[in-house]
Amino acid sequence: MRKDCFINDAKEIVLMKLSELLSPAQLKGCSEEELQALAAEMRRCIIETVQKNGGHLASNLGVVELTLALHRVFECPEDKILFDVGHQCYAHKLLTGRYERFATLRQTDGLSGFPSRTESPCDVFADGHASTAISAAVGLCRARDIQGKNHCVVAVVGDGAMTGGMCYEALNDVGQRKTRLVIVLNDNEMSIDKNVGALSQHLTQMRVSRGWIGTKKVIAEALVRVPVAGKGLYRAFRRVKNSVRNVFVKDRFFSSLGIRYFGPIDGHDEQEMERVFRRVRDLQEPVVVHVVTSKGKGYTKAEEKPEYYHGVSPEGKKAGASFGAAAGECVTEMAAENEKICVVTAAMTDSTGFGPFRKKYPERLYDVGIAEEHAVTLASGLAAGGMHPVVAVYETFMQRGFDQMLMDVCLQKLPVVFLMDRAGLGADDGPTHHGVFGLPMLQSMPGLKLWVPRCCDELRCMLEKAFEEQGPVAILYPRSEADNCPAFDAFMPGKWEKMRDGRDGTLLAFSSMVQTALDAAVLLKEKGLEMAVVNASSLSPLDGDMLKEMAGKPLYTLEESQLTGGFGSRVALECTQKKLPVPRQQMGIPDVFVPFGDRNEWLRRLSLDAEHVARKIEEDLKH
Amino acid sequence: MRKDCFINDAKEIVLMKLSELLSPAQLKGCSEEELQALAAEMRRCIIETVQKNGGHLASNLGVVELTLALHRVFECPEDKILFDVGHQCYAHKLLTGRYERFATLRQTDGLSGFPSRTESPCDVFADGHASTAISAAVGLCRARDIQGKNHCVVAVVGDGAMTGGMCYEALNDVGQRKTRLVIVLNDNEMSIDKNVGALSQHLTQMRVSRGWIGTKKVIAEALVRVPVAGKGLYRAFRRVKNSVRNVFVKDRFFSSLGIRYFGPIDGHDEQEMERVFRRVRDLQEPVVVHVVTSKGKGYTKAEEKPEYYHGVSPEGKKAGASFGAAAGECVTEMAAENEKICVVTAAMTDSTGFGPFRKKYPERLYDVGIAEEHAVTLASGLAAGGMHPVVAVYETFMQRGFDQMLMDVCLQKLPVVFLMDRAGLGADDGPTHHGVFGLPMLQSMPGLKLWVPRCCDELRCMLEKAFEEQGPVAILYPRSEADNCPAFDAFMPGKWEKMRDGRDGTLLAFSSMVQTALDAAVLLKEKGLEMAVVNASSLSPLDGDMLKEMAGKPLYTLEESQLTGGFGSRVALECTQKKLPVPRQQMGIPDVFVPFGDRNEWLRRLSLDAEHVARKIEEDLKH
Repeated sequence: MRKDCFINDAKEIVLMKLSELLSPAQLKGCSEEELQALAAEMRRCIIETVQKNGGHLASNLGVVELTLALHRVFECPEDKILFDVGHQCYAHKLLTGRYERFATLRQTDGLSGFPSRTESPCDVFADGHASTAISAAVGLCRARDIQGKNHCVVAVVGDGAMTGGMCYEALNDVGQRKTRLVIVLNDNEMSIDKNVGALSQHLTQMRVSRGWIGTKKVIAEALVRVPVAGKGLYRAFRRVKNSVRNVFVKDRFFSSLGIRYFGPIDGHDEQEMERVFRRVRDLQEPVVVHVVTSKGKGYTKAEEKPEYYHGVSPEGKKAGASFGAAAGECVTEMAAENEKICVVTAAMTDSTGFGPFRKKYPERLYDVGIAEEHAVTLASGLAAGGMHPVVAVYETFMQRGFDQMLMDVCLQKLPVVFLMDRAGLGADDGPTHHGVFGLPMLQSMPGLKLWVPRCCDELRCMLEKAFEEQGPVAILYPRSEADNCPAFDAFMPGKWEKMRDGRDGTLLAFSSMVQTALDAAVLLKEKGLEMAVVNASSLSPLDGDMLKEMAGKPLYTLEESQLTGGFGSRVALECTQKKLPVPRQQMGIPDVFVPFGDRNEWLRRLSLDAEHVARKIEEDLKH
Repeated sequence: MRKDCFINDAKEIVLMKLSELLSPAQLKGCSEEELQALAAEMRRCIIETVQKNGGHLASNLGVVELTLALHRVFECPEDKILFDVGHQCYAHKLLTGRYERFATLRQTDGLSGFPSRTESPCDVFADGHASTAISAAVGLCRARDIQGKNHCVVAVVGDGAMTGGMCYEALNDVGQRKTRLVIVLNDNEMSIDKNVGALSQHLTQMRVSRGWIGTKKVIAEALVRVPVAGKGLYRAFRRVKNSVRNVFVKDRFFSSLGIRYFGPIDGHDEQEMERVFRRVRDLQEPVVVHVVTSKGKGYTKAEEKPEYYHGVSPEGKKAGASFGAAAGECVTEMAAENEKICVVTAAMTDSTGFGPFRKKYPERLYDVGIAEEHAVTLASGLAAGGMHPVVAVYETFMQRGFDQMLMDVCLQKLPVVFLMDRAGLGADDGPTHHGVFGLPMLQSMPGLKLWVPRCCDELRCMLEKAFEEQGPVAILYPRSEADNCPAFDAFMPGKWEKMRDGRDGTLLAFSSMVQTALDAAVLLKEKGLEMAVVNASSLSPLDGDMLKEMAGKPLYTLEESQLTGGFGSRVALECTQKKLPVPRQQMGIPDVFVPFGDRNEWLRRLSLDAEHVARKIEEDLKH
């Protein structure tokens, strides 16, 4: 029994309820009052846990009543509920038997901050990257239909995720084949940043023009009158719907794609949502239910400034100097002199450090929503039109734009600067947020210069060089620089930085791993071994001269990235082609998905901390 | 002066016209009759050239009048016209000073089959993969606006390309910011296959419900009445538009995204299109002009069966047994026994060999349009729902779905079989169609089994094994198997096939390169060198036992794929980790984009033919 997650005024009877809720089926017997008390308890529990462990606050507080209504109407795990993006699943976890373990949220070996198929049969799909839930849900529906089953599939999609093209691809498919599916459009008017896009404006217009707070009673009453009776229900429902069509099914976007639309509905009125869900549950066609929620509902600070409470860092954790902030600041400065500079972001202008740029040059900042494919090709068009654009996106999300980087930017040798934040282990958010899969693809893109700074000063220097280039450049960096990183001298494209000399061998590292390499060298010195440490800040092209210079001594590589296709294997290829001895050992992430949890703990477990690195080199040199 | 591209009945005066047309500006002075004659000559020229050289026939015949109308109204290269997908640019090439070189279309060192920025200032963007043109055009528009320029940007997008999510991302962006842009929706009711998707149905409905052939005169007349006078024009035009709104601007899809819609218009009535383009040219907002064309127009065979004339193979070229056909046949057979098998395709059911499957199991075949992202995640949902889906897509297009393969399939260990066709050099279509960039990314996906058959029999065996797997499998193969490939014995996951023994060294190859390796071994034997040849048919996992067995002798790798991050560097990494000697040489494609042209010629130029391979090994062994 955990008590730590409740605030002083918790009532004993409610406490029992949430802790006793082992299955969502128990919700069916709850009274309206009990549900309200449960909702309050869920909010307290989420707030307290997120304040301790970090995580997504505002989005989860916004879907408490929605999640309750879903679990009252649909029967998990028989029925399938998907969350897009999955980080809005905390209420779902609390209602599906994971209350006892909730304090371990996002902790190493604890509960994931996303749905997880291994954690509960109620988690059907691990949505980490946005805009995937409708596609996955359509798959689940078709599997159901082929197998002659009859359960319901529900995809809960935020309006932010709806800016991604995948959603449209899925809607286009589902609308044509009339696949039976309930899509809940959770319209909270904000993804990570202020929401963007014409569809978002369209939704706002619907809310405004309908005066939806006033009409919602009409909708509810119209639905209540519908008799529940199989096929009969459906026909009767159609008639009723036609009669109230002018009130709530007049959406143009979804209807043009062949999907029935219901809404907007108050996403904090649990009873009303229940009524609507009960009525659409058995419809034999795709429907969108548009619910309007308030992000951060029930937590004043988060309601007022939801963008600051989207992702919350755990208490007491302090980060070093932020690479993103340095990048944003530096590009903003350069833009004063260089009128060709403009910036494309994908729903994360602030998180990537480009808030100040937007403030100063709003006409040169394009936030396209969660739409990385469009972001990259938009930038290629800007470059073809004579500008020198920056694309600022987290590394893991840039995976969505690899084809466009290759085909629209690199093939056409266009000057685009890619700033890829959160490279390396993304820690608490887990496998869908680690920036460790990019290098294999990025290194193989012909003509793409690939740089990796070890500190913010080096990043600034790289940015200056990047805008001197006539072709594409990608700069990858983690969230923040290492503590105590040594002063930085100068960066030259294609040249590495020798940080320490050593007669016994050379350790090549980059980015976050440079500090680890230096620490390992100190440990090795205690053992009488003198290792040179090189900051391999230019991954494409490699520094052939330095490689040649190092050739006489044992060579090791170290990276916070997948080994297969990564830096170490690239060095091996280069050495073979130049007839130089290849590295004696490549250290990096093996062929696994690294789970969520504490970054340092995972680096230890993967033998990528200074102690393990030193030990491996020592063993190798002594054999 | 080329004469070979005209059919006997060409009139002398028209002939002069097309050959004398050095710039599209000359079109302005042409009479209606001259334009019609030019159109006829362009068609003859396109038909004859494509029959000789191969290429895209139906789509290019469909846009002859459209391209004429565009070049009469817009002024290239000042104004920018983009084609999505670029293979509908032949008429554009003929009108922009490339008539003389047109006979070299898709030939080594000749004219590209796609727009090419290095070929002409009139080619602003090389669209090889679909659905990119609106994004690139938006970039060009914003670059124009920031720089205070005033030219027009036009994106010509097929209705097939409109099934891709990128288009929606771009429309969502352009509709919100009201970027000035003309989008021509070229509605030919067919992409490569029969078109799919709810939007396509919506467009059809518009055509049918408006009886557009009848109403088009009304539209044209209404437009003719608009006075041409800057801002005045715009206001007047809005009034006129409002008055004829019921006829042609009542589209729900585009208008819900904030974009004005005009159409449908007859895409073979050059005069009518001209009138509409002249009127929308100066509007200060995004507009969609919906033109209806007939694919293959003017060539009876292509009009009747446009899907067979989408891509035409050059005369006289015979392909070996098709891997795609074998895959489709084999999966169709297995589906009789295994009810879990279903298939997802992306607008290329026939080209990937799955036409027979669709015919036999229409309810288990999902063609989602040009929507690879959705295709992959749909499959992951099918797998999560208990099915065992196949995703059949060309390797180069699968780049669009890498993030989904990694995050939605591999991370969740779901049983999906990816069949990736056209691996290796795509030859005539050039750099956007070569399947040579996949391995770096695919090899680094944890848990993905990666197999590469050397012949159709091996592919069949792999397919049987693939459906026994509990997790994801990707099988990559080129268009067709090599001639004279030796009989195939058996495939075991994780095991390689020793095809020939040899005391002097081992050559590891896979897929198309196995035959090259065998041929090289024959050449080396003549020099007194005995090379073993191994078919490395399992790329993930590698065959560690075989690697160990080979360790005593010099090792070479050979691949028709990018070297960086490819098979050779993977083998080097594996050898280092197992303390085995690494390959002495890795042969493959260096860090360049291989142009279009004859595949064998490019293999020679890249030193990837048997003679070069043999010579390299000989030199290496003798040093």
